[in-house]
Amino acid sequence: MKIHTHGKDLGRLLICCADQPGIIAAVSRFLFEQGANIVDSDQYTTDPHGGFFFMRVEFQLEELIPRLEPLRERFARIAVSFDMEWRITPAARKQRVAVFVSREDHCLREILWRWNIGELHADISMVISNHPDMEAIVAPFGIPYHHVPVSKESREQAADIHLELLNQAGIDTIILARYMQIIPARIIDRYRNQIINIHHSFLPAFVGGKPYHQAYERGVKIIGATAHYVTEELDQGPIIEQDVQRVSHRHHVEDLKRIGRDLERIVLARAVQWHLNDQVLVHGNKTIVFP
Amino acid sequence: MKIHTHGKDLGRLLICCADQPGIIAAVSRFLFEQGANIVDSDQYTTDPHGGFFFMRVEFQLEELIPRLEPLRERFARIAVSFDMEWRITPAARKQRVAVFVSREDHCLREILWRWNIGELHADISMVISNHPDMEAIVAPFGIPYHHVPVSKESREQAADIHLELLNQAGIDTIILARYMQIIPARIIDRYRNQIINIHHSFLPAFVGGKPYHQAYERGVKIIGATAHYVTEELDQGPIIEQDVQRVSHRHHVEDLKRIGRDLERIVLARAVQWHLNDQVLVHGNKTIVFP
Amino acid sequence: MKIHTHGKDLGRLLICCADQPGIIAAVSRFLFEQGANIVDSDQYTTDPHGGFFFMRVEFQLEELIPRLEPLRERFARIAVSFDMEWRITPAARKQRVAVFVSREDHCLREILWRWNIGELHADISMVISNHPDMEAIVAPFGIPYHHVPVSKESREQAADIHLELLNQAGIDTIILARYMQIIPARIIDRYRNQIINIHHSFLPAFVGGKPYHQAYERGVKIIGATAHYVTEELDQGPIIEQDVQRVSHRHHVEDLKRIGRDLERIVLARAVQWHLNDQVLVHGNKTIVFP
Amino acid sequence: MKIHTHGKDLGRLLICCADQPGIIAAVSRFLFEQGANIVDSDQYTTDPHGGFFFMRVEFQLEELIPRLEPLRERFARIAVSFDMEWRITPAARKQRVAVFVSREDHCLREILWRWNIGELHADISMVISNHPDMEAIVAPFGIPYHHVPVSKESREQAADIHLELLNQAGIDTIILARYMQIIPARIIDRYRNQIINIHHSFLPAFVGGKPYHQAYERGVKIIGATAHYVTEELDQGPIIEQDVQRVSHRHHVEDLKRIGRDLERIVLARAVQWHLNDQVLVHGNKTIVFP
Repeated sequence: MKIHTHGKDLGRLLICCADQPGIIAAVSRFLFEQGANIVDSDQYTTDPHGGFFFMRVEFQLEELIPRLEPLRERFARIAVSFDMEWRITPAARKQRVAVFVSREDHCLREILWRWNIGELHADISMVISNHPDMEAIVAPFGIPYHHVPVSKESREQAADIHLELLNQAGIDTIILARYMQIIPARIIDRYRNQIINIHHSFLPAFVGGKPYHQAYERGVKIIGATAHYVTEELDQGPIIEQDVQRVSHRHHVEDLKRIGRDLERIVLARAVQWHLNDQVLVHGNKTIVFP
Repeated sequence: MKIHTHGKDLGRLLICCADQPGIIAAVSRFLFEQGANIVDSDQYTTDPHGGFFFMRVEFQLEELIPRLEPLRERFARIAVSFDMEWRITPAARKQRVAVFVSREDHCLREILWRWNIGELHADISMVISNHPDMEAIVAPFGIPYHHVPVSKESREQAADIHLELLNQAGIDTIILARYMQIIPARIIDRYRNQIINIHHSFLPAFVGGKPYHQAYERGVKIIGATAHYVTEELDQGPIIEQDVQRVSHRHHVEDLKRIGRDLERIVLARAVQWHLNDQVLVHGNKTIVFP
Repeated sequence: MKIHTHGKDLGRLLICCADQPGIIAAVSRFLFEQGANIVDSDQYTTDPHGGFFFMRVEFQLEELIPRLEPLRERFARIAVSFDMEWRITPAARKQRVAVFVSREDHCLREILWRWNIGELHADISMVISNHPDMEAIVAPFGIPYHHVPVSKESREQAADIHLELLNQAGIDTIILARYMQIIPARIIDRYRNQIINIHHSFLPAFVGGKPYHQAYERGVKIIGATAHYVTEELDQGPIIEQDVQRVSHRHHVEDLKRIGRDLERIVLARAVQWHLNDQVLVHGNKTIVFP
Repeated sequence: MKIHTHGKDLGRLLICCADQPGIIAAVSRFLFEQGANIVDSDQYTTDPHGGFFFMRVEFQLEELIPRLEPLRERFARIAVSFDMEWRITPAARKQRVAVFVSREDHCLREILWRWNIGELHADISMVISNHPDMEAIVAPFGIPYHHVPVSKESREQAADIHLELLNQAGIDTIILARYMQIIPARIIDRYRNQIINIHHSFLPAFVGGKPYHQAYERGVKIIGATAHYVTEELDQGPIIEQDVQRVSHRHHVEDLKRIGRDLERIVLARAVQWHLNDQVLVHGNKTIVFP
């Protein structure tokens, strides 16, 4: 939840492997020998007896950018011996982001505002929508706006256009800012654990459509919102963040929508920020979110 | 949420009817004419245009107890003209309560402690359990403890014993303080909207058994507990209160259970207190909880 | 917290007086006799034995606007007999609002966005700032922007300009959206309980300047924001709303500021909405906020 | 917040020193060379450029207990080279705890209950009170109860008795479970960062006496409780944990006390558990709480 800095000599190392003795010793010795100073380090083991091991290290290393490739090559030898999945990324590098939106503006505005004041370390390269409505909101930021209509018949054709746009711009991460359309499997597959959706309920309660209507019918005393990675199963992907707000019998569906908008904005913004700062690792259908 | 007093001259009037002009005027004039002073009054209309109307009034009336029957007779005339469901109860009257428990002690202890320090305005007349384990906890309070074993075969026989015990003691309200048994339909029917259960999840997420295991599997970032009235459909009754607590990937099932115990205690205690103070009205499958 | 409607025949009656029997009966009979239907009614008594009584009624009355003056005249007779402070306002009437801002944009943007989507039932008539920076944000909304520089020497002169601008536009309510200047006593006096400030701490903790620095120094585990009416005593006015967020030792001052921005936006927006819907009554140095 | 296990081969290493490159590498290599497996590791640096470094490691080492002294001797050499404050403790070791209480029972009961079900890994060696009232609560647990009356005149004499009792029993940690007496400086000094107090407000708001009365007077919309280490300055010690609850104008002082009791119980229990599991480090007047 803290601010992550993006100094030009700051690097991040993310690791996932089967747990065994000596991992931390090997990793920290490696970084020390390269002349790197560990600024932040978090690790998590699912089970001390034969579980999985996850680690995120932030380190300071002079002249990081030019030394990045040799650093990766040398670390690869350690990685092999522990059978690690891993990556080293420079914190200064900005991910390229596409925002998908339909007709509700609150999540889009929130993302744009936070990006504009420097809270989100990313390049927002485009906004894609199945409607033309949001163009006026996006235009002042100088971000390209692509209106790609989607109907049942044109879904595959739209996916072609989407993939073309995303590929051309070298997009890393997709934010579904209340984009009320199903994402085709081939886009999900291409952007595995890189598509963040905001669902307007406290999942797994009220999956599917009209969750505020469902919440009203059930008479819950608390509503929520959930940010998750998109998988092929609707509303079933790994949860990144959730938050809730108290409601009462006095709140009608329209009130729940209004209160929910505030939740959606905050929850999506948190999830996006963690994702952009490499704080989220996915394991099975769950996330490890390092603070 | 405030403390409700139980002075001997304090009465409560609860009303439910189709909304129409003049209800509040008629009720408040009636009370004024009887010499009663309105101490607190809450009302709620589901929809100003043709909805349902709910009202809860606390009033002070000298010599309330001896005047109760004539008061009810006189109010019945107003009630008829508006086609009301209603009741007038003296706040001083204590409901008679039975607590059902299995093998987990935290909800039982919470209820006994709050009752013992005077937070719960009730007579706890008995504790019923399918196990003998909790007797030592209950004994110091001088409350009868009935051990009624329940197996698949003996369920109906146990229900006979339960009903006999409840009837003999004139029980008004049943608290299921983590009583891990299905309640037979004839007891539910006899104690309609008078049986309060605590479910260890944020309903409607994770209905059924082992909700903390389900929550762990789904990787939620917040867990909850729900107090509700028991209906024939498992975990589907009207929700009285819910609360939640943030968790993370670091929490295993045992941690969720431990954190959940605190939620269960607090949520159940609130729901019971509101119920005992006549603050809860049921409409369809929802509750109106007056503050 | 619910949405309040602003239909043209919807009226609001607000009352404050010493408690005595018969007030609700008199008010509800009066409204019934005028042909009004009570849509919502809340009341609160500080102490059933000789305390103060507060009431807020929403009623539906055909042709409310043309009948407003005779209605007030008739009610005045009841008001006199109970020695009431009171007002009757049409819900459709929009208050005229001025927003004061300095150099932080988040609260201003939040107010403008909510107003723009129709959440705030008001006319935002002007934005006043001691800096020119926010003009570009305000311009697209077509709201006049007045840059009135303030220095120690020019404070009184600036107050003259402020009062002139406020008077000319017939302003009802002033929102201090992180306006980091002392408000002179004559403006506070002119707009008694009509100036809403957002303070970036959980008052009364950390009064005065740099509350996030103070919170960081003290090592609190939760930070907050407070919306309150402005009085002559700095940060001491009646509190309308507060909210909080959990933090940890990992959060530096900059993190607290970032987390605090979200709190400030939400808390200010709630307080403004309640104020605009006549849900807030002030009694001594406290508020009664009707839901 | 997770459950910490106390296996006989589980050890904990806590470190505090000026930050410099190579600390983690040195510590993890040391543990690896001793044959220990790191089960959990958290570290925190106040400032990557010349700040303080804190670390907490849980490790598994066969035959830990008999090997403890040689392990400490060997680690002392590393510690010297980094100028560390440090300790190694076996997780299985139970701290010896004294609970101080006056006339309110809720915090005492909470501690006893959690201890009784095994949530608190400690030996509760005695309860000390300035009143005889709580003896009946403590007796069934077989814990010695010492009634030591305290008056203005007898304060020093009482402190003598307290210190004698604490010393004889080898007490490590003192819990002030709503013990409404000033702790003399010589006891604070003897038990530096080992005395945990629960204060019934959201500190630093409402320091001193009768915080619920103060909160009521100020009209806050949220109340809180704070667990902190006791220092010579009243209510100014390092904060370990805080939590809050929403209240409204409807809540009188008695309601705030009632709601506050639940907060006090939960907040104190969390702080005690973290302290007993060596999760809390004190730096200046702040705590680092490792999750």
